[in-house]
Amino acid sequence: MDIIETLRGIVGSTHVLTGADAAPFAQDWTGAYRGEPICAVRPADTGEVAAVVKAAAAAGIAVVPVAGNTGLMGGTHAPGRIALSLERMNRIREIREGARIAIVEAGVVLTQLHEAADQHGLVFPLTFGAKGSARIGGVLGTNAGGSNVLRYGNTRALCLGLEVVMPDGQVLNTMSELMKDNSGYDLRDMFIGAEGTLGIVTAAVMRLHPKPLAYATAMVAVPSVADALGLLNRLQSATGGAVEAFEYMPRSYFEGWTKREPDKRPPFETTYDHAIMVEVGATAPRDATPNETGEIPIQAYLEEVLGEMIEAGTALDATVARSEAQRREIWERREIAGELSLGAGPFVLTDVSVPLDRVEPFLDRAYAALEADDPDVRHLLVSHLGDGNLHLTVWPSDGDDGYERVMEIVEDIVQEMGGSFSAEHGIGLGKRGAMARRKDKVALEVMGKIKAALDPQGIMNPGKVLP
Amino acid sequence: MDIIETLRGIVGSTHVLTGADAAPFAQDWTGAYRGEPICAVRPADTGEVAAVVKAAAAAGIAVVPVAGNTGLMGGTHAPGRIALSLERMNRIREIREGARIAIVEAGVVLTQLHEAADQHGLVFPLTFGAKGSARIGGVLGTNAGGSNVLRYGNTRALCLGLEVVMPDGQVLNTMSELMKDNSGYDLRDMFIGAEGTLGIVTAAVMRLHPKPLAYATAMVAVPSVADALGLLNRLQSATGGAVEAFEYMPRSYFEGWTKREPDKRPPFETTYDHAIMVEVGATAPRDATPNETGEIPIQAYLEEVLGEMIEAGTALDATVARSEAQRREIWERREIAGELSLGAGPFVLTDVSVPLDRVEPFLDRAYAALEADDPDVRHLLVSHLGDGNLHLTVWPSDGDDGYERVMEIVEDIVQEMGGSFSAEHGIGLGKRGAMARRKDKVALEVMGKIKAALDPQGIMNPGKVLP
Repeated sequence: MDIIETLRGIVGSTHVLTGADAAPFAQDWTGAYRGEPICAVRPADTGEVAAVVKAAAAAGIAVVPVAGNTGLMGGTHAPGRIALSLERMNRIREIREGARIAIVEAGVVLTQLHEAADQHGLVFPLTFGAKGSARIGGVLGTNAGGSNVLRYGNTRALCLGLEVVMPDGQVLNTMSELMKDNSGYDLRDMFIGAEGTLGIVTAAVMRLHPKPLAYATAMVAVPSVADALGLLNRLQSATGGAVEAFEYMPRSYFEGWTKREPDKRPPFETTYDHAIMVEVGATAPRDATPNETGEIPIQAYLEEVLGEMIEAGTALDATVARSEAQRREIWERREIAGELSLGAGPFVLTDVSVPLDRVEPFLDRAYAALEADDPDVRHLLVSHLGDGNLHLTVWPSDGDDGYERVMEIVEDIVQEMGGSFSAEHGIGLGKRGAMARRKDKVALEVMGKIKAALDPQGIMNPGKVLP
Repeated sequence: MDIIETLRGIVGSTHVLTGADAAPFAQDWTGAYRGEPICAVRPADTGEVAAVVKAAAAAGIAVVPVAGNTGLMGGTHAPGRIALSLERMNRIREIREGARIAIVEAGVVLTQLHEAADQHGLVFPLTFGAKGSARIGGVLGTNAGGSNVLRYGNTRALCLGLEVVMPDGQVLNTMSELMKDNSGYDLRDMFIGAEGTLGIVTAAVMRLHPKPLAYATAMVAVPSVADALGLLNRLQSATGGAVEAFEYMPRSYFEGWTKREPDKRPPFETTYDHAIMVEVGATAPRDATPNETGEIPIQAYLEEVLGEMIEAGTALDATVARSEAQRREIWERREIAGELSLGAGPFVLTDVSVPLDRVEPFLDRAYAALEADDPDVRHLLVSHLGDGNLHLTVWPSDGDDGYERVMEIVEDIVQEMGGSFSAEHGIGLGKRGAMARRKDKVALEVMGKIKAALDPQGIMNPGKVLP
C-alpha cells in the first residue's frame, strides 16, 4: 500500500497534506531552508503519532517533527520526508495551581501557555520573539532560551516530565510531576534539545512560577559593555537576584530597528553605542506595595541604582516604564530582533555564548576579524547579556558563499574564550559544520552511539544535529 | 600480566590496596552491602583513571567508582571487581567569583567545597547529613538532593559541565562554564544520576550562589501535615520564595533521636506529633539590615507568620534561633537522620516522593498498610517536605526477609499517588527490584539500549541501576 494511503487511514484524508497544501512545510520561517516533503501529516493524538511513526518505519521513510516551524537553524527541513505536524495536539490538559505545573501537548503555542498560566496567577516564564507561533514541541526540541533565562533557566529547567514517541513507535511515558525523581537515567534531558532526532515529544509536564507582583522595566544607555555588566551586578545585589531580563542592544541594532520601524518612537532622542533593556520582578509583597510616598519599592531600587550610575557617569541616559503600555513598548523593540535579521539578502545568524567577563573582548575581536576578512561586511547584534548569549547576524558581501567562512571566524574566537558555538537556537542543519569542527570528538562519538542505539534505522529527523 | 601488577604500574604500588588494606571498600556505610573487591586503586588524576579503565577493559574485569562511599543503596558494591577510589583527586581547581563557578575534581568532599565557596562570599547550596564525607563524584553519580533543593534545585541544577572517563578509557570533555550551551545532546545530565554505570565522572564545573545575608531558622510544632504545608505557602508568599529548607520530623523521629542523643536538648519541652524545621534566607540587603527597632526583617517576617498561626491554632509552638549556635543545634538534630536509621537490626530505607498535596494521605495509608501487614513493625520518618520527599525507615519484624515486601507495600501507594519510588538516593542495588516493578517498560528498554551502546562489554559498575 502507498504510504500516503496508509497515513490517510491513520489520521483521516483531510489531515494528510500534499502538493500546494503542504507548501507551509516546504520552507522554514527564515526562507533559508527549502525542500518539499512527501506530505505533511497532522495526527490528533499520541496514538496517531505512534501509528504514523510505525508506518513510516515499515516503509523506510524518514519522519521530521514540526511544531511551530519558527526555528532558525533548519531543524524542520523535510525534503522527501514525512513532515509530522503537531499543530492539532494543542490542548493544555491541566493546570494545577497548587503544584505549579501545566500538563501540555506538544502543539500548544507558547503564548497560549502564557495566557493560561496568567489566569491562575502564575507565569510560564520562557519568552522570546516567536512566542506567538512557537509551539512547546519545538521549544523542548531546541531547549529554547530567550530573555528570562537569567532568572528562571532555559526550557530544560522548566520541564519535569515528557511523553515521547520513540523511533520504533513505542510510547515512552516519563510524565513525572515531581521535583525529585531519580528513577534511573535522566531520559527527559536527553530528548530536550535533541531536535526530534531521538523521538517525537508529544506531551510534557512544565513548571510554572509565581507571577511577580510588580515589575520595574527600563531602557538604559551606558558608555560600555563593562558598565552594562556593572549595572547588572548592582541590580542583582540590590534586589537579591530579581533581575528577570537583561538585554543588550548596541547602535547596530537600533539602526536596523529604525529602518524597519520608521514610525515608532525610539527609546532615546540620541542613538547611543550601547543600550540595555532591563526588567526586575518583585515576588515579595514588600517590594510591590507602594510606600508612604506612593513609590513601588522595586521601581525605587531600580531608579536609585540608575540615578547613582548617571551621577557617576557609568550610565548615560535612562527611561523607566511608567505604565504597562510603556513596558510593552520596551519589550516590543526587543522582540522584533528575529525580523531585523531577515529581508536584506543572505545572512549568517550566529548564536554563541561566552563567559560574562569575556563578552566585551569577544565583540571587539569579532568585529575586527569580520571587517578584516570582508571590508564591506554588515552586521547587527542583539544579546541576552545576562547569560553571555550573543546573536550576531552577519551579511557577508559574498552572500551564501561566505556562510561557513563567517561561521568559522566567529567560532575561532568563541572557542578561544571558552564559549559555545550554539547557545539556544540548536544545531539543525545550519550548525552541523560547527559541530564537526568544534565539538569534543568523544562527545560526538557518544552522541552517535546514542542515536544509533535508539534509531538504528535512522528515520527520526535524519541529518540534523549530528555532523 | 596480572591485573594487580598492571594497576601498580599505572598508579604506583602504594595506591593499589588489597586484603586488609582494602577493607574500607568491602562494605558500604550502612553495612548492608558487603563483598571484597579484587583491589582498590587510587588514581591521582584523570589520565590514571583512563589508564585503569583501559587495563580493566582489556582484562575483562569490571570497575566500580567509589567517591565518599556514603551512599545508601549499595551503588559502590564491588565484589570481585576493581574499586576505583577518587579520594586522591580532591583538588578544587579554581573558584571564579565573578562567574560564580567552582571547577572541582570528583574526590572533593562536600564540606570542602562549602568552605571554599564561603571564603569567596558564595555558597554551594547542596547539603545533607553525610556532607563531611560525601564527595562530588558520588553527589553527581546519584544526583543527590538534600535539604536545600526547595530553593536551589538538586545536583543536576548545580552542574554546568563534566569530564568523564568512558568505559573504553576515552576522556569526554564537556566542561562548559556557560549558562546556555546547546551544542548537541545533553550528555551532562545523562551521566548525572547514572551511578557510574556509563562512565566515571572525574571533574565538574559546579554553580555557586550568592551567600544569603541573613537567615531565619526555627523549629515549629504544628497540628498536622496540612498545617505544615500552610506554613510553607505563607512563608513563600511573605518572602517571595526565600524558603531554603522545610524539613518535617514527626513524633517517631524525635523518639529515635532522644534514644540516640539522650543528653541533648530537645526542640520543645513536649514531644509533638508533627514538627518542622524551617530556614529562610535573605538575599537582598533590605531583608538583612536591622530596622529601627533592631529587628532583622527576614526574621521579623518569619516571626509574624508564626505568631499569626499560633494565634489561629494552626501552629502549636515555635522556637526561633537567636544565634548561629542555636541555628547549628537545629540543623544538627536534622542532619543525624542517617544515623537514626542504623543500628537497630535490618531495615528498609525508602526514599519516595509524592505531589505535595498527597503527602498526608500517603502517610496515613502507608502507616496503616505497614501495620496491617506486620503488627510489630517499627518505623521512623523524616522528610524534605518542601519537595514532597519522604524517607520512611521501616524495621520489619521478620528482618531481611521483609525487605522486598515492605518495599512493595510502600511502592503500591506511591505509584497510585503519582509519586516516585526513588527521589534522591539513587537505585544502586537496593532499588533494582523497584525499577523492574515500577518503571515505565519503554523507559527501561531505552536505558538498556544506552547502557549497551556506551558500555558494550558491561564493565562499568555492572548490576547497578538497571534491573
